[in-house]
Amino acid sequence: MSSVSMSAIPDIVIGRLPLYLRALRRLRQEGKQVTSSHELGRRLDISSAQIRKDLSHFGGFGKQGTGYQIEFLIERLQDVLQVNQEWTVAVVGAGNLGSAISHYRGFQDRGFRIAHLFDISPEKVGLRIGAFVVLPVSKMSETIRKDGIKIAMLAVPAEHAQTVADQLVEAGVQAILNYAPININVPDNVQIQYIDPVTHLQHMTYYL
Amino acid sequence: MSSVSMSAIPDIVIGRLPLYLRALRRLRQEGKQVTSSHELGRRLDISSAQIRKDLSHFGGFGKQGTGYQIEFLIERLQDVLQVNQEWTVAVVGAGNLGSAISHYRGFQDRGFRIAHLFDISPEKVGLRIGAFVVLPVSKMSETIRKDGIKIAMLAVPAEHAQTVADQLVEAGVQAILNYAPININVPDNVQIQYIDPVTHLQHMTYYL
Repeated sequence: MSSVSMSAIPDIVIGRLPLYLRALRRLRQEGKQVTSSHELGRRLDISSAQIRKDLSHFGGFGKQGTGYQIEFLIERLQDVLQVNQEWTVAVVGAGNLGSAISHYRGFQDRGFRIAHLFDISPEKVGLRIGAFVVLPVSKMSETIRKDGIKIAMLAVPAEHAQTVADQLVEAGVQAILNYAPININVPDNVQIQYIDPVTHLQHMTYYL
Repeated sequence: MSSVSMSAIPDIVIGRLPLYLRALRRLRQEGKQVTSSHELGRRLDISSAQIRKDLSHFGGFGKQGTGYQIEFLIERLQDVLQVNQEWTVAVVGAGNLGSAISHYRGFQDRGFRIAHLFDISPEKVGLRIGAFVVLPVSKMSETIRKDGIKIAMLAVPAEHAQTVADQLVEAGVQAILNYAPININVPDNVQIQYIDPVTHLQHMTYYL
């Protein structure tokens, strides 16, 4: 659902690369050094042919019969996804969800560091939540500009999501992960992705 | 990413229906009664042709030129997705994320009611979190069986996700929304979906 693809590689392929990276890191954690498209496929419930085809877009990662060197493939995928660096991220919305996001320890070692947590409510501003002191939304644009932040996570009520997104984009944000259960419009050069658990639940109930 | 499709309609189409439903409910909330594939497409950043094609799998929803009756289409999509009823859901993991999920008010009016919140930690069990008193995982299977719960959300650390999922499936759960950043294996007749914000962020950084 990212808005515009700027490369010849299908966006759906790009969307699978983080899953490959996650599985490879897990394999490394288990002490493995070599894997195969079959092993990855079993873990990810994706066909091994699909995995080989996806990876072939980025050059030769393994020789027939010898498998993939896990460490090499991790580094290569991190390069491709540009997470061989640390991105600073702003979180907007310090409610239950924004608070849970701010506490989550799984961002840091996968390329992302939350730098600021903003909220509009006077009762939230100034509160300490995890490692952050909640900043007022009135300081958001200035702070994002000053720090050159390119990525934001949006955890505000649906009715505020578009307004906040507009402000983020205006301040220079180029990628938004929107947790509010509403579609928002962003310019073509801005990436947007959505997390809405209900859409996943409703997808599954179709099959029950 | 649901494991097995049991219908002739492509799973990717089913996955878009909750987005259509969400957008239609938003339009209804705005006081609209009729919409078009063009209006929906603009809101969702999906082509109107795609929307018409997707909906055509489920019969005639609108006549050329007259648009879609929003209320009728909402009801029809709720029927198709089987969310014209209320599903009870179990949440496993009462950390920051499980707590945020338990507080979230957006499930109830879209077909889902959280019935129980489980955790393994003795320090969490018995705590009141939102409307719930945290139950021990040792009571999970029994409670799920007794209440006939078919859907669970998994908000446990990655290293526990597979074990808990196995227990849930054994107790009769048929659909799991897994927030743990790890792929888990379930039988073919069990649905699984994933929420991992980092995969979305890494998808977007590719384009930055």
